Amino acid sequence: MLPSTKPPLPEDLRRLIGQPVDAIDTPALVVDLDAMQRNVTRMADFARKHDIRWRPHAKTHKSSAIAKLQMQAGATGICVQKTAEAEAMAIGGVRDIYISNEVVSPAKLARVADVAQYLAADGGRLAIAVDSIEGIRRLAHAMDQRRAAGGAAVVVDVFVEIDVGQGRCGVPPGRLALELAQEIRRHATLRFAGLQAYHGKAQHLRTAAERRDAIAVAVQDTQFTRKLIEAEGIAVELITGAGTGSMVCETASGLYGELQAGSFVFMDADYAANERDPAQPAFEHALFVKSQVISSGVRHAVCDAGHKSHAIDSGLPRVLTREPTGELAFANGGDEHGILRPAGANQRVPALGETVWLIPGHCDPTVNLHNHLIGVTGGLEQGQVERIIRVDARGALT
Amino acid sequence: MLPSTKPPLPEDLRRLIGQPVDAIDTPALVVDLDAMQRNVTRMADFARKHDIRWRPHAKTHKSSAIAKLQMQAGATGICVQKTAEAEAMAIGGVRDIYISNEVVSPAKLARVADVAQYLAADGGRLAIAVDSIEGIRRLAHAMDQRRAAGGAAVVVDVFVEIDVGQGRCGVPPGRLALELAQEIRRHATLRFAGLQAYHGKAQHLRTAAERRDAIAVAVQDTQFTRKLIEAEGIAVELITGAGTGSMVCETASGLYGELQAGSFVFMDADYAANERDPAQPAFEHALFVKSQVISSGVRHAVCDAGHKSHAIDSGLPRVLTREPTGELAFANGGDEHGILRPAGANQRVPALGETVWLIPGHCDPTVNLHNHLIGVTGGLEQGQVERIIRVDARGALT
Repeated sequence: MLPSTKPPLPEDLRRLIGQPVDAIDTPALVVDLDAMQRNVTRMADFARKHDIRWRPHAKTHKSSAIAKLQMQAGATGICVQKTAEAEAMAIGGVRDIYISNEVVSPAKLARVADVAQYLAADGGRLAIAVDSIEGIRRLAHAMDQRRAAGGAAVVVDVFVEIDVGQGRCGVPPGRLALELAQEIRRHATLRFAGLQAYHGKAQHLRTAAERRDAIAVAVQDTQFTRKLIEAEGIAVELITGAGTGSMVCETASGLYGELQAGSFVFMDADYAANERDPAQPAFEHALFVKSQVISSGVRHAVCDAGHKSHAIDSGLPRVLTREPTGELAFANGGDEHGILRPAGANQRVPALGETVWLIPGHCDPTVNLHNHLIGVTGGLEQGQVERIIRVDARGALT
Repeated sequence: MLPSTKPPLPEDLRRLIGQPVDAIDTPALVVDLDAMQRNVTRMADFARKHDIRWRPHAKTHKSSAIAKLQMQAGATGICVQKTAEAEAMAIGGVRDIYISNEVVSPAKLARVADVAQYLAADGGRLAIAVDSIEGIRRLAHAMDQRRAAGGAAVVVDVFVEIDVGQGRCGVPPGRLALELAQEIRRHATLRFAGLQAYHGKAQHLRTAAERRDAIAVAVQDTQFTRKLIEAEGIAVELITGAGTGSMVCETASGLYGELQAGSFVFMDADYAANERDPAQPAFEHALFVKSQVISSGVRHAVCDAGHKSHAIDSGLPRVLTREPTGELAFANGGDEHGILRPAGANQRVPALGETVWLIPGHCDPTVNLHNHLIGVTGGLEQGQVERIIRVDARGALT
């Protein structure tokens, strides 16, 4: 079934523990553990204050260690997007996992059934999203097969995904969702658990007012769908969704019972560019690419961090401003290089070997480029390496 | 020194060998081995015909197996961009490696010296690029230290990088390059081997005329620099550079002695968008993301390949047109999803579970997302899995 051995930590990384930040060779993905912990505490406080569950998305950090840290702080469980992520999290000791995405290939659904068995054997629980009759039948078939092959009588929680504005997966709000809920209830190994109503596009609308307007529509659509299903005598126990950008809106709706926000744990340049809603906790940047200058000329310098170090789907990274260098503009230098130019007058081009810290444009795919996160305490300047965090769901594609 | 154990092939991949292409679960990065072999043969024929050396860039495939296949076909050696890539290639059995990039951190330079020793012990050779006096001194210091620690009398070949239009690393053509050549010659462990003159930006100029114009300027600048150095009695043995986009121009110059083109082995959607120079071999697409539809609606379908499956720095992937689906437009669906829409009238939205083949926008960072390439023969439709190729330099960041 699920393998359970972890590869050992590479010797060069193990030796880093206890060393000053200066000892980290570049490029490297560094987590400010103090800032990350403050972000987790802020989210836990927010959820407690508003009496809402939080199930952070592990697609951000892809690390069972961080997932467990979040659960210790009060998270209900975690979300993942892929079967392979669920496997990595289960092996890593996470016991409450929700695959907030559609899985339709029989080969993967057999693995989903394995994960459900694995979690249930330890008092845990697996949930999954669906958006088609065929998907539900294939899932039920895999669960039945698993039971017939000697599995326990495990039931998987199934959420019907509705498209509330993302324009990606999910059925339109309304009657089709009801049909899916009814189909789920025809299968003994499945339990209808509620609605998945995540509005991804709303996360990056820049003004708080735009996000409120987008989520108001999502709430209307979801409420309408819930009533339609409940009118048939089927309870809609939970509505789950929301991201770091919009979470205050779903929380205020009174309709959503669970927040899936993930990026708050690290924050990235793209989320930081949003106008902050006054109700939103003040999350800080906790994820940085440590880089250094490998070439320095009259007008520009070149650092050793490019597309292989950070994802650019949500824009280029921002350079963390530090004295005495001052503000630097980052330009695309390809897979292995970043071009740095002084952003103001009377500033100097950084010198050969100088350290440059980048704030990634988008955390999730940036983390996916790295096998390990280097966790530091005491700050990026004076701190030291506290722990190495394996990105155990890195490259978990299937 | 260098570790020499390879992790075993995962059992699920080992079992794929000999299976039909249909058995490959998605998303997966698939190499059409027949097309790749034809590309390698075309490049070997081109180099032979024009009496020029080819040292393909391994940053494209990041795989020692493919590097060795290229060398068997006549390549002089390979290029890499990073110390960690050089290590992976050396461990994988490649004996002639050129780090066509600047390395300045003492920790990495110690590793560079290790690789030089490792290769020399087996009759091989390491070369590296520089663009600063400080970089040369640090490199020489690392080589001296390595020898003092009991290493053999190994000499590393050093190329002076000049900026011929890329606007990234490299000194300006002219006097500074001469000073660097002179500095190299002051160190017993270094040998001045020539000039690195790669014009990255010229690769993606769309018309053949634009590329010819850009390389004409690069050739002038490089010729000028060569004469300046040779006027001081220093031989410039080799000028190395060129990519898949511009290689016919550097070849025609008579100045360049070595081609660093890498992408030709796979080709990507971005290179395929170039107007082909009549002199250029007709390289074919050999790298594909196999994906499948996980959600299908009235107007669009969603496949399971997003930014985690393919890089988008050079544009979104193209969908391989197949019957009966016809042409599909691919839109960004985030890290794990691609949105598919029929590109013409009277076409249908692909159905749940349907296979979709994507041609990545940019090969190099796409390969970096995957641990393995699945090599098939006999075509994508009717073929079978022939071998699994480890991406042994995947994530080789340092």
